[in-house]
Amino acid sequence: MRVIAFIGLGTMGAPMAANLVKAGFDVVGYNRSRPAVENLVAAGGRAASSVAEAVASAEVAVTMLPDSPDVEAVALGPDGLLAHLPAGALYVDMSSINPAVAVALAAAGAQRDVEVLDAPVSGGEPGARSASLSIMVGGTAEAFARAEPLFAALGTTIVHVGPAGAGQTVKAANQLLVGGHLALLAEAILLLEAAGVAPEGALRVLAGGLAGSTVLDRKSGAMLARSFAPSFRADLHAKDLRIVADLARRSSLVLPTVSTAAQLMNAVVARGNGDLDHAAVLTVVELLSGREPTP
Amino acid sequence: MRVIAFIGLGTMGAPMAANLVKAGFDVVGYNRSRPAVENLVAAGGRAASSVAEAVASAEVAVTMLPDSPDVEAVALGPDGLLAHLPAGALYVDMSSINPAVAVALAAAGAQRDVEVLDAPVSGGEPGARSASLSIMVGGTAEAFARAEPLFAALGTTIVHVGPAGAGQTVKAANQLLVGGHLALLAEAILLLEAAGVAPEGALRVLAGGLAGSTVLDRKSGAMLARSFAPSFRADLHAKDLRIVADLARRSSLVLPTVSTAAQLMNAVVARGNGDLDHAAVLTVVELLSGREPTP
Amino acid sequence: MRVIAFIGLGTMGAPMAANLVKAGFDVVGYNRSRPAVENLVAAGGRAASSVAEAVASAEVAVTMLPDSPDVEAVALGPDGLLAHLPAGALYVDMSSINPAVAVALAAAGAQRDVEVLDAPVSGGEPGARSASLSIMVGGTAEAFARAEPLFAALGTTIVHVGPAGAGQTVKAANQLLVGGHLALLAEAILLLEAAGVAPEGALRVLAGGLAGSTVLDRKSGAMLARSFAPSFRADLHAKDLRIVADLARRSSLVLPTVSTAAQLMNAVVARGNGDLDHAAVLTVVELLSGREPTP
Amino acid sequence: MRVIAFIGLGTMGAPMAANLVKAGFDVVGYNRSRPAVENLVAAGGRAASSVAEAVASAEVAVTMLPDSPDVEAVALGPDGLLAHLPAGALYVDMSSINPAVAVALAAAGAQRDVEVLDAPVSGGEPGARSASLSIMVGGTAEAFARAEPLFAALGTTIVHVGPAGAGQTVKAANQLLVGGHLALLAEAILLLEAAGVAPEGALRVLAGGLAGSTVLDRKSGAMLARSFAPSFRADLHAKDLRIVADLARRSSLVLPTVSTAAQLMNAVVARGNGDLDHAAVLTVVELLSGREPTP
Ligand SMILES: NC(=O)C1=CN([C@@H]2O[C@H](COP(=O)(O)OP(=O)(O)OC[C@H]3O[C@@H](n4cnc5c(N)ncnc54)[C@H](OP(=O)(O)O)[C@@H]3O)[C@@H](O)[C@H]2O)C=CC1
Ligand SMILES: NC(=O)C1=CN([C@@H]2O[C@H](COP(=O)(O)OP(=O)(O)OC[C@H]3O[C@@H](n4cnc5c(N)ncnc54)[C@H](OP(=O)(O)O)[C@@H]3O)[C@@H](O)[C@H]2O)C=CC1
Ligand SMILES: NC(=O)C1=CN([C@@H]2O[C@H](COP(=O)(O)OP(=O)(O)OC[C@H]3O[C@@H](n4cnc5c(N)ncnc54)[C@H](OP(=O)(O)O)[C@@H]3O)[C@@H](O)[C@H]2O)C=CC1
Repeated sequence: MRVIAFIGLGTMGAPMAANLVKAGFDVVGYNRSRPAVENLVAAGGRAASSVAEAVASAEVAVTMLPDSPDVEAVALGPDGLLAHLPAGALYVDMSSINPAVAVALAAAGAQRDVEVLDAPVSGGEPGARSASLSIMVGGTAEAFARAEPLFAALGTTIVHVGPAGAGQTVKAANQLLVGGHLALLAEAILLLEAAGVAPEGALRVLAGGLAGSTVLDRKSGAMLARSFAPSFRADLHAKDLRIVADLARRSSLVLPTVSTAAQLMNAVVARGNGDLDHAAVLTVVELLSGREPTP
Repeated sequence: MRVIAFIGLGTMGAPMAANLVKAGFDVVGYNRSRPAVENLVAAGGRAASSVAEAVASAEVAVTMLPDSPDVEAVALGPDGLLAHLPAGALYVDMSSINPAVAVALAAAGAQRDVEVLDAPVSGGEPGARSASLSIMVGGTAEAFARAEPLFAALGTTIVHVGPAGAGQTVKAANQLLVGGHLALLAEAILLLEAAGVAPEGALRVLAGGLAGSTVLDRKSGAMLARSFAPSFRADLHAKDLRIVADLARRSSLVLPTVSTAAQLMNAVVARGNGDLDHAAVLTVVELLSGREPTP
Repeated sequence: MRVIAFIGLGTMGAPMAANLVKAGFDVVGYNRSRPAVENLVAAGGRAASSVAEAVASAEVAVTMLPDSPDVEAVALGPDGLLAHLPAGALYVDMSSINPAVAVALAAAGAQRDVEVLDAPVSGGEPGARSASLSIMVGGTAEAFARAEPLFAALGTTIVHVGPAGAGQTVKAANQLLVGGHLALLAEAILLLEAAGVAPEGALRVLAGGLAGSTVLDRKSGAMLARSFAPSFRADLHAKDLRIVADLARRSSLVLPTVSTAAQLMNAVVARGNGDLDHAAVLTVVELLSGREPTP
Repeated sequence: MRVIAFIGLGTMGAPMAANLVKAGFDVVGYNRSRPAVENLVAAGGRAASSVAEAVASAEVAVTMLPDSPDVEAVALGPDGLLAHLPAGALYVDMSSINPAVAVALAAAGAQRDVEVLDAPVSGGEPGARSASLSIMVGGTAEAFARAEPLFAALGTTIVHVGPAGAGQTVKAANQLLVGGHLALLAEAILLLEAAGVAPEGALRVLAGGLAGSTVLDRKSGAMLARSFAPSFRADLHAKDLRIVADLARRSSLVLPTVSTAAQLMNAVVARGNGDLDHAAVLTVVELLSGREPTP
């Protein structure tokens, strides 16, 4: 495995592609808007001017795109990734998308003798930069084994969780928990503030007991400061919670708590704040409670 | 500080009183039902046959009772704790009750020259046994200082979080987070199971990222095994979430996510399972989703 | 039955007392703020300067007050209504309050040989003025028979629905339905508007089918016009939905839909709009959806 | 307009097609399963053995199918309705489907010189039998005028509510209200029953005031009797509430109350009761409240 095509050089894709270069791979990048490709070239990669060109001589193709329709647009169709990737190559989609689409991609790949993995990540932009992502992988054991050198250049916790789609399902469960924990933390903080209790000290006690969570550790500072520069954008999280809802519907599950949290995240987006950090869910609880939110 | 009256020798109160004996205090215990008092005597304490008798010569009185009305019944009225505790003594309520009642107790104490602290705990029965509770204390700095030797015999994380009622407010925030995290964990586990993903491995990945929480670490095993022997009873948690709702109402806060989680906990109780562990919230999500829950 | 003491001469009480005067009763009114009493005198009633004075020689006492604590404050205690109402008289509370308090009032009355009815109303200020209220009555059949001439002067639909507290329970069910219907109508209107469908015509079709409701008939005009001059205040409705929640809790019922609607009504109040009409629940749905509400 | 092709002869389609025959139209019917076609022939219609055959010489084609994918399957593709309907003909889809699909059908029709109307109905099977449906029509004024004779044979309230898709949007608003009203009625009935108030009398009072609704008039009998023989199936209503959710998402609306009601309807389906009447939403509230539901 030497030549890797990398499609989607955004917040996550750019540092991931650069890490692959650093690890010694020959990375051919493609992105709709051009500057991202030039940055990759500056980092030691090569430029392609279309998806077809990028994948034409690749052993592995990676996509890191926003949502299911984007991945379908890039992967399928006559000009698409699968149409031009050489038979026998491997395709790894690392975007967070609907598990049903991941399953469909695996089937489409099989028809062209291309093995497909769904390998969404967590860890955010910092994790992408420092090559310390968690990677949840769905697909066959053989395909997983082939991709391991690539994953090793991108992350530290790399787990094969099941067959095609399983990676995306685990990522959906991740986003369910994170989205819910954020909404609850916002509600707890407003409860403390409204009662006149200094929240910093209180949250320290809470962090040490059964109420503790990584969201509390990492996000309460931003919430207390009302500082919502995006680490993970609310609109991406709203998209992920729609994936959760779709999964629940297909499995005929009724999931009340995350449904409520999803409405709050949707309200962040509906209010025009989709480009803020997902911690901005606090602003919607403030709004409902008659407090004027900062943004 | 030598003589401590201890009222309420239940799941939590019994090991706490025993720890005070071990630490060298002269503990006079009272409980409505008698066997609990005899156990304390066996552990080296003394028995009282009424609240009045228990507190008559105490320097500190402690209560550890289920709910606000119980504490009011014990503390107020002509036969109550405050009527018989010597002037100058200290009264520490360690039950989880409504902050508004805690504030009222502090005021009632002040009229009789008794300093009052609200000092609810977290850590459960294991924490009570091993004297490793977290204790969230509301009241004056002076009263807190007086109580510290006592707290040191009961817990390890001991924090003065604010004036009267603040301890209970922080405890309410704790229960908000824990109750919500449990409901979300139940929903995530059902999502994984329904999609056919082995949840053990998946939850290990999730635990390492932003989705991690103490609830996930400590409660997912019980949920996966559908084993709900009580560590903390669902009916006590439902009571605590009513305190959260009442606090929210008084502060005119609208808290949608915990409201939803509270309904699920109420449904556990309504179904007659209030004496199961609060992790049994999973059974209600199963029920809504057409899966037959075990209990 | 000739002399009626009437306590609480507000939006509802004032026209009701006036209608009793018109019907030939000797009405002695009391209200905390004085102008309301003077208006009653102008309408042919008599003034009292305390609750005790008002009820001292009454055959029937009526209260029409905001909430449970208000009724308790007026009815109980040494200066209260029950302490001064002659034995053998009848006490009719027409406020919308907690059924549990209504039951307690009936018990307190029984101790003083006073029969008590709970008789909350629906129909709003217009119904109060035109003596066309619906009256839901809880209490004994005898007491109901005694009160019928009085009810006949106030309303048109007068139903004895059960024992003490039953009137308040039926009123709670009424407010459950109305509060929920308002929230749903707001959501339907925003759905139509956002899709660019002219809502007036659409709502006319909906009104004729299974979607029809009195709330749709009477409130959609105000919602479409964003005109929220109060017919029934949002803060009173929020209070009534708290009564619903309390009733549900006591009966261990979990009622998800009205809980959600109650949160929206609470948000109206939390935003400082408790004095607007309850139809202003529309503004909260607008806010969540990123539309700037008018008030 | 003489020859009408009618595709989808189910609960609604069968009586509607029969009414068209009675009104003098030459009706050619097609249905996947054969007996329904034979029933139409018995009623005076004609049989077709494929969609293509049914529409080949029709002036108007009507579809009455369960859901969006069914309509897409029948209308689009090389063997589909639009491929074989003569240019200049009219296509009226009377199913309840996603407005976005209705808009797409109108566009697909325009490319083949076929005018398309979306014309969903309300009134249920009784309304279909008695030709008293309400019909909400989206499309051009010209197409609406052409279809009026056909609509006149099927319903009594026939309203042109806007351009393509508007009929489906109004139907979605209808289902939002009906689904919500059912859930609220269930909650009100359980509140009354649990408090020991005889619900029949209470509901009569409620029906006369602001709480009144067509759902209360028509569905409370079935709920009180726990008799859920289907008039409108819960799974169809769950489908309609998914359309509402999709519409809300596309318009970036957050609609909390109907979201909650939709979860209850989804729980009916998840429990395997999708073929019961939508009033069976009561069983889910019973379940949450620890009452054993009948079905
Ligand atoms: N950001 C984060 O912290 C995390 C993100 N994720 C997931 O990773 C995925 C990517 O996220 P992120 O990098 O933040 O998103 P960005 O929006 O920053 O990047 C997406 C990139 O994809 C390109 N793109 C979009 N659509 C197409 C298309 N149809 N064809 C070609 N290129 C396209 C964009 O290029 P252009 O400039 O032309 O639009 C852009 O460079 C998402 O699924 C997200 O949920 C997972 C974990 C953390
Ligand atoms: N269990 C846990 O894991 C935790 C509990 N808590 C909180 O601690 C408090 C106590 O909980 P827990 O010990 O589990 O509860 P239990 O029900 O086990 O114990 C309560 C004790 O109070 C006594 N009691 C109740 N009412 C009265 C009264 N009116 N007069 C005198 N005695 C009375 C009971 O005695 P009798 O036998 O006579 O009824 C019983 O011994 C609660 O507020 C709970 O929320 C906090 C953290 C963890
Ligand atoms: N039932 C009611 O009270 C009301 C229903 N509606 C709406 O009307 C529509 C129809 O409902 P209803 O009549 O109750 O539903 P049914 O399920 O009773 O009827 C649907 C009919 O469509 C046929 N069909 C389904 N899929 C296809 C396909 N792909 N190709 C050809 N035929 C197909 C079925 O035939 P087969 O036997 O082969 O499966 C069946 O005869 C729905 O959108 C519903 O929401 C609107 C108002 C009231």
